[in-house]
Amino acid sequence: MRTRPLKVALLGCGVVGSEVARIMTTHADDLAARIGAPIELAGVAVRRLAKAREGIDPALITTDATALVKRGDIDVVIEVIGGIEPARALITTAFEHGASVVSANKALLAEDGAALHAAAEQYGRDLYYEAAVAGAIPLVRPLRESLVGDKVNRVLGIVNGTTNFILDKMDTSGAGYSEALDEATALGYAEADPTADVEGFDAAAKAAILAGIAFHTRVRIGEVHREGITEVTAADIASARRMGCTVKLLAICERAADGRSVTARVHPAMIPLSHPLASVREAYNAVFVEADAAGQLMFYGPGAGGSPTASAVLGDLVAVCRNKLNEATGPGESAYTRLPVSPMGEVVTRYHISLDVADKPGVLAQVATVFAEQGVSIDTVRQQGRQDGGGEASLVVVTHRAPDAALSATVEALRKLDTVRGVASIMRVEGE
Amino acid sequence: MRTRPLKVALLGCGVVGSEVARIMTTHADDLAARIGAPIELAGVAVRRLAKAREGIDPALITTDATALVKRGDIDVVIEVIGGIEPARALITTAFEHGASVVSANKALLAEDGAALHAAAEQYGRDLYYEAAVAGAIPLVRPLRESLVGDKVNRVLGIVNGTTNFILDKMDTSGAGYSEALDEATALGYAEADPTADVEGFDAAAKAAILAGIAFHTRVRIGEVHREGITEVTAADIASARRMGCTVKLLAICERAADGRSVTARVHPAMIPLSHPLASVREAYNAVFVEADAAGQLMFYGPGAGGSPTASAVLGDLVAVCRNKLNEATGPGESAYTRLPVSPMGEVVTRYHISLDVADKPGVLAQVATVFAEQGVSIDTVRQQGRQDGGGEASLVVVTHRAPDAALSATVEALRKLDTVRGVASIMRVEGE
Repeated sequence: MRTRPLKVALLGCGVVGSEVARIMTTHADDLAARIGAPIELAGVAVRRLAKAREGIDPALITTDATALVKRGDIDVVIEVIGGIEPARALITTAFEHGASVVSANKALLAEDGAALHAAAEQYGRDLYYEAAVAGAIPLVRPLRESLVGDKVNRVLGIVNGTTNFILDKMDTSGAGYSEALDEATALGYAEADPTADVEGFDAAAKAAILAGIAFHTRVRIGEVHREGITEVTAADIASARRMGCTVKLLAICERAADGRSVTARVHPAMIPLSHPLASVREAYNAVFVEADAAGQLMFYGPGAGGSPTASAVLGDLVAVCRNKLNEATGPGESAYTRLPVSPMGEVVTRYHISLDVADKPGVLAQVATVFAEQGVSIDTVRQQGRQDGGGEASLVVVTHRAPDAALSATVEALRKLDTVRGVASIMRVEGE
Repeated sequence: MRTRPLKVALLGCGVVGSEVARIMTTHADDLAARIGAPIELAGVAVRRLAKAREGIDPALITTDATALVKRGDIDVVIEVIGGIEPARALITTAFEHGASVVSANKALLAEDGAALHAAAEQYGRDLYYEAAVAGAIPLVRPLRESLVGDKVNRVLGIVNGTTNFILDKMDTSGAGYSEALDEATALGYAEADPTADVEGFDAAAKAAILAGIAFHTRVRIGEVHREGITEVTAADIASARRMGCTVKLLAICERAADGRSVTARVHPAMIPLSHPLASVREAYNAVFVEADAAGQLMFYGPGAGGSPTASAVLGDLVAVCRNKLNEATGPGESAYTRLPVSPMGEVVTRYHISLDVADKPGVLAQVATVFAEQGVSIDTVRQQGRQDGGGEASLVVVTHRAPDAALSATVEALRKLDTVRGVASIMRVEGE
């Protein structure tokens, strides 16, 4: 074993960073044995010096992250500060000054992964980011390496713990969205500003990263169709229950049937209770991967949190350190297929549409005509009087598979019917 | 991209080998793009020339496997013949003559993995074997690489599809063991000689491999406690159902609580229906991994079959080819902890014991005394008259956790009681 240590700089010392530093210290001997050389925490960049950092030598702490990555003696930079800047500039500077990078930064990778990969390649460094997607659940490495000899056709999963906690709470307790969000906030599952989670930005970033790796192409977060869960109502969940379904926020990456394009989307969807994803509770994550030869695989585990994310960071750290000792680099970006990303309108999916309609003869025929005009085939219709004496009824329609554009045009046309008083809920149906 | 192809020799052209050859041909362009160089099937060693090999140039086929691996121009040897010899000699010869090896041979790796790893290291080659455990489900790579910065404490899973199919069939249809085995054979899930599967040898080999990787030590198949499913009766399954459980053949690898030893075992066990492994149906596999920082992860998918196994082989092939181009090798054996493997008697587990006893007062007191004498604490007892007028009753005892030696000594002592007419079933209880 080499005795000269590999030097590691840590950018960020929050929930994840402090856990990474702790494990690097307490498991130093194991990590050294597994790498083939000891590792040394050579510097920790933080925003504010004032805070106490338990177990970290105060002499290592600096507020000058740029100077740290420019030192020139750093072998690996661990970036766990998140956000676009200064993370992007720091990573690029790290490559320039001799370091490989382990990052947990999903937003940056989904926004500008291609440029980061190009910089890594230019300087002959590694860029590893298992921790950016679904915490400790191995997904990036299985897709990049285990399934690299196969053809992945679909990735479908729950990749955001906060929204899964909220939807699970709504499903089990009958609570409304705000009430469930409040509970998630109180328990620490949702941040004070929950926008990134509940509006689906976090899941969309992960979908972009997964789609890119799975299909060997480039997908940016802006190309991911995104709908959050803020519009999901207790009535939607109850409606799903009546269909033998539950509602989950899904990230879905698909290769088109003709193989010539891909799609990536994040939206709430009804899935049957018999589907394995339906039983993913609380803040857990789970991802299905469908490949030609491998068939259907599922990966399940805690999708966030300091320790699980640190586990993923440290796995990458060991890999990158081994590569350094081998004077080699691991697999870089693979985007040779250059498949275009199709817009949401071309995605083939199914809708569950709940309509408030006038309770009189001929309404169903009118509604059915609208579907037929848009070329959308109906799977089931459930019609019921609302029994509130208002002369209204509800009509619940589940369609067969059709392009999303045709489905949404159908909804627009339905809204214009005199007999349709309102569209109570629209939700896609997946997992069948 | 390099234009000179990497040369691949295939040893074995059965269900897996022919699928590997097929994908290498049909996906040649994708594989070349992902590796950074084309690959060329340079030879295929088979046992009998007579058989037609669709899609394979007859000029590539040979019965002289040794000459093929000795050619000296082979970059990677794929070994899918199975068994100990000649596979072991061929792999060693391949290393000696310049090739890295991708193997799906669980029996050989579990029997003599250390020597193969040593040979690979001596000659500076790679030895990859994702396909040896649970088909296409990524397990070897996640344990060797993704979780390498973490501390794995437990691996628990269903790693044999044949036995899971049989037990699932017994559970859903009430069939007995022989009847379910016949169905598995008819459907191609069990081989003509099902010994390796039903006696647990296949699962024990996988347990040895997983335990070795998970705990960074050496575990040979002979150190794995092994019980098959041939003694599992319809009555056991019915008894499990009454407890809200089902019966699965589990492979369980554990680090002792004091961290100073490990255990590996394969045996049927009752698990609660609420446990995710309880819902693993037919020939599917699923494995739980528990680690300090990552928490509990699950990996699920098809555990066998030509295509899934070929997917795992090809993933390794791409990795090994990339390493070749980098003039590096991937992670080798990691056995630095040298933890001893404790015998089954030291494993802490729980028993479900069903006794036929005399239907008279004082029997429960007698039985309870035996448990107390062995220091085994009882969790629940269910006592019922058999209502067949024979003066007999049954007593179903579920214990708390205790060393397996104490539990089995308890059973022996129970057998000696006059009032115990027989021990109807003994099964361990896991997954709580």
